[in-house]
Amino acid sequence: MAQRTCLTIVLAAGEGTRMRSSLPKVLHRAAGRTLLGHALASAEGAGAERLAVIVGPGREDVAAEAQAARPDAQVFTQTERLGTAHAVLAAREALGSPADDVLILFADTPLIRSSTLSRMRDELAARADIAVLGFRAADPTGYGRLIVQNGSLAAIREEKDASADERAIDLCNAGLMAMAGKHALSLLDEVGNANAKGEYYLTDVVEIARARGLKAVVLEAPEAEVQGVNTRAQLASAEAAFQQRLRAAALEAGVTLIAPETVFFSSDTVLQPDVLVEPNVVFGPGVHVESGAVIHAFSHLEGAHVGSGVSIGPFARLRPGASLAEGVRIGNFVEIKNAVLDAGVKVNHLAYVGDSHVGENANIGAGAITCNYDGVNKHRTEIGAGAFIGVNSALVAPVTIGEGAYVATGSIITENVPADALAVARSRQTVKPGWAEERRKTVTKTKRD
Amino acid sequence: MAQRTCLTIVLAAGEGTRMRSSLPKVLHRAAGRTLLGHALASAEGAGAERLAVIVGPGREDVAAEAQAARPDAQVFTQTERLGTAHAVLAAREALGSPADDVLILFADTPLIRSSTLSRMRDELAARADIAVLGFRAADPTGYGRLIVQNGSLAAIREEKDASADERAIDLCNAGLMAMAGKHALSLLDEVGNANAKGEYYLTDVVEIARARGLKAVVLEAPEAEVQGVNTRAQLASAEAAFQQRLRAAALEAGVTLIAPETVFFSSDTVLQPDVLVEPNVVFGPGVHVESGAVIHAFSHLEGAHVGSGVSIGPFARLRPGASLAEGVRIGNFVEIKNAVLDAGVKVNHLAYVGDSHVGENANIGAGAITCNYDGVNKHRTEIGAGAFIGVNSALVAPVTIGEGAYVATGSIITENVPADALAVARSRQTVKPGWAEERRKTVTKTKRD
Amino acid sequence: MAQRTCLTIVLAAGEGTRMRSSLPKVLHRAAGRTLLGHALASAEGAGAERLAVIVGPGREDVAAEAQAARPDAQVFTQTERLGTAHAVLAAREALGSPADDVLILFADTPLIRSSTLSRMRDELAARADIAVLGFRAADPTGYGRLIVQNGSLAAIREEKDASADERAIDLCNAGLMAMAGKHALSLLDEVGNANAKGEYYLTDVVEIARARGLKAVVLEAPEAEVQGVNTRAQLASAEAAFQQRLRAAALEAGVTLIAPETVFFSSDTVLQPDVLVEPNVVFGPGVHVESGAVIHAFSHLEGAHVGSGVSIGPFARLRPGASLAEGVRIGNFVEIKNAVLDAGVKVNHLAYVGDSHVGENANIGAGAITCNYDGVNKHRTEIGAGAFIGVNSALVAPVTIGEGAYVATGSIITENVPADALAVARSRQTVKPGWAEERRKTVTKTKRD
Repeated sequence: MAQRTCLTIVLAAGEGTRMRSSLPKVLHRAAGRTLLGHALASAEGAGAERLAVIVGPGREDVAAEAQAARPDAQVFTQTERLGTAHAVLAAREALGSPADDVLILFADTPLIRSSTLSRMRDELAARADIAVLGFRAADPTGYGRLIVQNGSLAAIREEKDASADERAIDLCNAGLMAMAGKHALSLLDEVGNANAKGEYYLTDVVEIARARGLKAVVLEAPEAEVQGVNTRAQLASAEAAFQQRLRAAALEAGVTLIAPETVFFSSDTVLQPDVLVEPNVVFGPGVHVESGAVIHAFSHLEGAHVGSGVSIGPFARLRPGASLAEGVRIGNFVEIKNAVLDAGVKVNHLAYVGDSHVGENANIGAGAITCNYDGVNKHRTEIGAGAFIGVNSALVAPVTIGEGAYVATGSIITENVPADALAVARSRQTVKPGWAEERRKTVTKTKRD
Repeated sequence: MAQRTCLTIVLAAGEGTRMRSSLPKVLHRAAGRTLLGHALASAEGAGAERLAVIVGPGREDVAAEAQAARPDAQVFTQTERLGTAHAVLAAREALGSPADDVLILFADTPLIRSSTLSRMRDELAARADIAVLGFRAADPTGYGRLIVQNGSLAAIREEKDASADERAIDLCNAGLMAMAGKHALSLLDEVGNANAKGEYYLTDVVEIARARGLKAVVLEAPEAEVQGVNTRAQLASAEAAFQQRLRAAALEAGVTLIAPETVFFSSDTVLQPDVLVEPNVVFGPGVHVESGAVIHAFSHLEGAHVGSGVSIGPFARLRPGASLAEGVRIGNFVEIKNAVLDAGVKVNHLAYVGDSHVGENANIGAGAITCNYDGVNKHRTEIGAGAFIGVNSALVAPVTIGEGAYVATGSIITENVPADALAVARSRQTVKPGWAEERRKTVTKTKRD
Repeated sequence: MAQRTCLTIVLAAGEGTRMRSSLPKVLHRAAGRTLLGHALASAEGAGAERLAVIVGPGREDVAAEAQAARPDAQVFTQTERLGTAHAVLAAREALGSPADDVLILFADTPLIRSSTLSRMRDELAARADIAVLGFRAADPTGYGRLIVQNGSLAAIREEKDASADERAIDLCNAGLMAMAGKHALSLLDEVGNANAKGEYYLTDVVEIARARGLKAVVLEAPEAEVQGVNTRAQLASAEAAFQQRLRAAALEAGVTLIAPETVFFSSDTVLQPDVLVEPNVVFGPGVHVESGAVIHAFSHLEGAHVGSGVSIGPFARLRPGASLAEGVRIGNFVEIKNAVLDAGVKVNHLAYVGDSHVGENANIGAGAITCNYDGVNKHRTEIGAGAFIGVNSALVAPVTIGEGAYVATGSIITENVPADALAVARSRQTVKPGWAEERRKTVTKTKRD
């Protein structure tokens, strides 16, 4: 099958009014990825070397997302909404270039697996001109039924047109279809609109193909895999389904999830075996965690690399560009952003390290903050190996703390500190005996909350 | 029905010993509201313009909660515990003033919907003198059965008095009742206590009414809606049921909940369409969020107004009186209390802003804190538009930072800063070369944890 | 039964390859305790005064965990893996000392209840020489079937050896067994290895006993209680089962869990009645919370004592050695470690108190930090009753703040402060008018993220 070429057409022009959203439906996200992005990823997994995405008029945002996910994707606009076949034909130009297989997907059906699409392509390679994806519906009401005769798909019958016997069929049309590329354009062009709504329906190609003596078949998928997303509740269900897959895969790979149902992954999260994840952890996109790391409860990671044996949290946040080498310890109420921390660095409490590089075994004290933003620009902080940054200090970037240097508690560091030096920027302590006692006598409580 | 007057009597005198609590059962909370408060809100939704609450002896706390929720509620004390009819008659004075409808509710049945109560009132308006709420019990054991004959309720039969045939009935008594006001007092007064426990049972009014030729009917509700709360486990179940309702309503209204099961609402939470809520967010009472806001994971909001396009968290806490205008950004480990933040304000990390007003586009640095409390009183901080508050600075209230002013990193500000000025309150940095190296030679490690 | 002596042999030598872990399976944790620790605790609850643990060769880590949990446990190594009977016989020396009852447990079956083990011992005391634990399997496929005849256990039949009738039996072998001590060694010694794998199976003792005229019986447990842990998914299931037990017990004891499914306990967590726990709280090992305390959402406690009426969080972390007396308030983004806080102390925001003692009613300001670590050693901080520690101050330990003393905002305290004194260590504020305005004119924005 690797030899067969494939064009995948993804229909992404639906308005999604039931989402009650100003955002187009296919740009809503599940597991950190847009619905459209999921469809494109599934197609890619099934070997789609050419991608065409059909968007609604004026939907530059959808076009941009398609090309962000797959820069080589062709985007076509369906200028009028005249049915699914009409939508597919918006990609007429792409259909004009030869492809062995044409896959037709829906951007609002994000749970489809690549393996299922590959099986559809296998049908084309082996025996069929059209392969329609079907599912056994728990409740078939409202779905088009798949009429199978002698192992072939004879027709897709809309419920309103179905006989009583046909309504008893629970094998329903999932919408997704694979067609032999050599027939695709002519089949689609023959679809008419002589129906109540005056629309061109993709499902009509089955009977057209049959009339030509071509063979259509049905391939089944689980109902859960072909669920569409039309409402926020269905979006939440799709999210839950993705999370269930990702959690099961992590467990299978040798990751400990103490409470899998409380851990939220992105589709691209990578956790090596023997990572331990406590309850209530959120992985945004772009996280890679090496073996032996422990992610404690209430941690939030995004765009971060976590080395082996690292300990994160509880209550830690890693933002994009955080890269933690072996054995780093990030404690509670700590934020790391766009910073490389070398092996053994400790940032145990209440600190912010951003736009920085921290050398091996440096210790960043509680309340220490890299001042990367001056109100106009961002600047970098360099902290040398073995440096000790005192509590409640501030490093005003751009600034370099030398290796082994010591920044005294509460110091505001605005100039570079040489290696092995002590930097102090604070006042001496003075004491006024009896002051507090006197004050208690004179200050009256007026309000307290 | 709007013309019919209504008196609602809420029975809140139960001891709730199975809660094993020093707090009266009806003061326990679900979805941020007391059980009693839920019953009162349901009554209010059904048009209860007069409310009488029956409390146990010495229960000033319950009386106070009733009047906090509905200042015009009349509170009556049931001095002895002699049964449900006896409890209702504690409101004899209220029953003495005419009302078309009398609704009898239980404060420990918080899930009852206003629409169900309205349907009970509709029965009175249309055809009945008494409307008893029933439910189809999955397991009827222990419940009183509703004996229906020719469309009328003939009797409520306690299980111990029921025949085998009657025990097979799954239509059970939920306890709630509506009575025509003109009959209520005389029916209740006719209830006797000639039974094993010597108590006056509200259920007896059905047979008394029937003997008088009055008509009693049954109105059904789902079992889940009439579940009582007697234990902490049932309280948790009621909470879960409220959350399920609130989550479904939010999704329906066009809110994205990535993981609905991890978001906790209060009954009064208002989220506009196209709000996005990440996993693990808690909404305490009094939160209103406008369209386009994003509430990131691990956020906790209470008594707060969140404007359109605002970004909150992760790890942010909004406390009562937080009011955030359009486009405000609140980042991680930030607490906002009793503070108005104008449009575009940024508080991105590790900060506390309390008892303050912050002008447009001001930037509050990491570790910056408004010192609103001097150990005796609270004071206010005023920060002008476009001001820049440096990292680890402290603004000692009462204090005003002028528009466009710049507070240097690490400064303790005790006096007002004029507009466009720089305020500095810190020491110059000094460096002792080689100090750290020397120290490493001389300081011995004695302990490390 | 109290008079009967008992030897418990815990088999902990399995490799657990399906865990895909470098950590031995029985050292994985559920509810804060290793699987082995759970088995030992269950045995202890059933009166096991002698414990023998069988470990695999070279597994000092498992041996150490056994002796950490029960210092008097004897550890034996099974040098070769020749079957369960062979594993038990690794404890030959222990079996040689008389015991009325011998219990054989599996370290990867952590959910077994002490009460079930006691019932097995009761069978020995009452009527049997062997008591085998069985369960009714929802799907018996793959399990050994328990062949019961005339109230006695005749044999344990492996599925591959079972007749069709025997395969229809749903009563399956859970693996756990109790034997009369006086027969145990001789029964085990008679087990042969004339089978396909050449292994010595513990299950064979049933038929051997029967041939001797001894009586074997079956005692049933719920399937959930005898589930083994072989994969990370099963580990997660076991964790969930423990959490369900612990949550139900807490509710039963009069604790309010607003959302029980979001609260994670350790096996040893102790919560008194009328503790209220909000959603998303994690209790690590060693936590004791007194009545009336409120643990707000997003809190993480470990090794901590929380007094009555204390309020914790949201977003608070108590680490080992935190001890909070009555009425203490710990607010958001606060970490307490190895510190005793006397009654009424407030630490409301963004603070770290470690290695400290804080006297009654002291107030620790936002951003205040005890600097307990100097880069080499840890030191203690003593804060007197009624002291006020200003915002963003740092107490450099070792240091003592006297009773009623006042540390000014932003002060770095390096020397002791007398009672009732004011300590200040900061610079005076200076203002440069127009500086910020000038800077805005001259500094150009180069980048912003």
